[in-house]
Amino acid sequence: MPERIYEVFGKKMRFKKEDVQLIVFDFDGVMTDNRVLLCENGLESVVVNRADGLGVKILRELGFPMLILSTETNRVVSVRGQKLQIPVLQNIPDKAEALTKYCAKRHIDMSGVMFIGNDLNDLEVMKLVGIRVVPSDAHPSVKKIADTILLSPGGGGVVRELADLFEGI
Amino acid sequence: MPERIYEVFGKKMRFKKEDVQLIVFDFDGVMTDNRVLLCENGLESVVVNRADGLGVKILRELGFPMLILSTETNRVVSVRGQKLQIPVLQNIPDKAEALTKYCAKRHIDMSGVMFIGNDLNDLEVMKLVGIRVVPSDAHPSVKKIADTILLSPGGGGVVRELADLFEGI
Amino acid sequence: MPERIYEVFGKKMRFKKEDVQLIVFDFDGVMTDNRVLLCENGLESVVVNRADGLGVKILRELGFPMLILSTETNRVVSVRGQKLQIPVLQNIPDKAEALTKYCAKRHIDMSGVMFIGNDLNDLEVMKLVGIRVVPSDAHPSVKKIADTILLSPGGGGVVRELADLFEGI
Amino acid sequence: MPERIYEVFGKKMRFKKEDVQLIVFDFDGVMTDNRVLLCENGLESVVVNRADGLGVKILRELGFPMLILSTETNRVVSVRGQKLQIPVLQNIPDKAEALTKYCAKRHIDMSGVMFIGNDLNDLEVMKLVGIRVVPSDAHPSVKKIADTILLSPGGGGVVRELADLFEGI
Repeated sequence: MPERIYEVFGKKMRFKKEDVQLIVFDFDGVMTDNRVLLCENGLESVVVNRADGLGVKILRELGFPMLILSTETNRVVSVRGQKLQIPVLQNIPDKAEALTKYCAKRHIDMSGVMFIGNDLNDLEVMKLVGIRVVPSDAHPSVKKIADTILLSPGGGGVVRELADLFEGI
Repeated sequence: MPERIYEVFGKKMRFKKEDVQLIVFDFDGVMTDNRVLLCENGLESVVVNRADGLGVKILRELGFPMLILSTETNRVVSVRGQKLQIPVLQNIPDKAEALTKYCAKRHIDMSGVMFIGNDLNDLEVMKLVGIRVVPSDAHPSVKKIADTILLSPGGGGVVRELADLFEGI
Repeated sequence: MPERIYEVFGKKMRFKKEDVQLIVFDFDGVMTDNRVLLCENGLESVVVNRADGLGVKILRELGFPMLILSTETNRVVSVRGQKLQIPVLQNIPDKAEALTKYCAKRHIDMSGVMFIGNDLNDLEVMKLVGIRVVPSDAHPSVKKIADTILLSPGGGGVVRELADLFEGI
Repeated sequence: MPERIYEVFGKKMRFKKEDVQLIVFDFDGVMTDNRVLLCENGLESVVVNRADGLGVKILRELGFPMLILSTETNRVVSVRGQKLQIPVLQNIPDKAEALTKYCAKRHIDMSGVMFIGNDLNDLEVMKLVGIRVVPSDAHPSVKKIADTILLSPGGGGVVRELADLFEGI
């Protein structure tokens, strides 16, 4: 398993900020702590982080296009995407295929894609992209292939920590 | 109290994967952290884990029949069972009797049943089954009789940890 | 501040089980973690614990009358009281006066009352009763006068720990 | 970064209680833990603390005018302000400008303002006021300019800790 070092943007930089053409976020376990509040009336809720809201704002001002890519069908993903003003692809069983198409259409090279994922269903797509980032509490299966393991657990300010990294804070 | 070792599936294996004919989950304290969000409008919600959703998927692909067995009358149990596509027996004051009947009808030997429970009201039924598993934060009364104490607390990915065990991860 | 010892029911017992004529619970910070989920539609929710549900059941079977006494006006207190089948006095600015009246009417001596409270607004009433119990995260002002400091924080199974104490678990 | 010392009210006091003419609270990350529960029906909820409710009561009895100043547009801020009976300015992109106007109108000198903030969007306004307080989990950017770093994280009783400080508890 890679050490928890910021080799991507630090001294061991292998990618330049300019190389990142797209930042893709998995939703559950990245923007949330992977938990879901389930009401007896059937409605689901998730816990998100205002710090990530600021993080998205910073990343946008730095000029990065962003995308949320989720297997989940729940409306809560699109509701969050709308508030953050990030496009959302959800109800996506095969993330690898979906992201490949998405990037081809926009002439984005997969090597310029940074993907932040946390679990098995992110494994295939993460193998295709150039930069793999995981929260501190990601499943071992994806931690193994990560370039960067963040200090924040899912929902604990993952996006904000990323923004701070780009800002050099 | 048994040590926190995976003697069931590890080197000290006493049961073979093939011997497990049915996996039975208590709900509160196993698929949740035993807490309940109570709204002033009377509705109850519980916190479940997306990792457990993946865990159920893995266990199903491995071929295990599953069941949720709960004392609780609240609808939230059946709502969750439906999403996970696991049959639910709820509002069951006497779990031992209910499970005995359930298994008899399906010609499942109780020695082939794995039960994951966390509290006093699981004690009697757990004494009847072959394999007893508890979350890390189970009540001492059921920890005492457990074959396996998981690393995950209730709601912290209990089902997923179990799936990883079966997968040998 | 008193040590975290169970002097009430342990070897240093000063009260006999038979002396406890009434157990009175503050609600917020005792049966909850003192937090409130506030929805933009104005509805409040609190997090309670299924373990406390079992705890109340055990205490009832042991024969203890119980009461919830809360300053809060929110309906969520009475909703919880109803589920637990415990009478509720809420919207009580002066708990000392309310409990004194409640006990006088029922010929209960205040020295036989056990009160579980967590904050300043429990201070006066706790000075009047015979047995003072606080969760581990109670405010220093009430911890100072406590006979017993539980291991559980508010909402973390306070009632259940109390039931286990009475049961000698 | 300043040490976590209560230099404002302690032995190293630089301000007298009498100098504090207004206490201004940021909302998210101060009265909450900066997290938001997002429901698939679009409604947002936040977790607040009953201890802070008592804290506000104590500060009011001590005679301090208070204000909540928030960037957020969500109704939940005003709902909380109403329950606490504190005036609210929300949907405020430029907090520095808004607070300057607010104080000018009321002839309050900015040097007599205590501001409790937790993140970047509090930075400019905090540079203008006399006393800067942050929760223990504030962003490093505002921690750097803080006079006082509280022991409580956002939502963990920040207001109550402040009230206790004023009371000398």
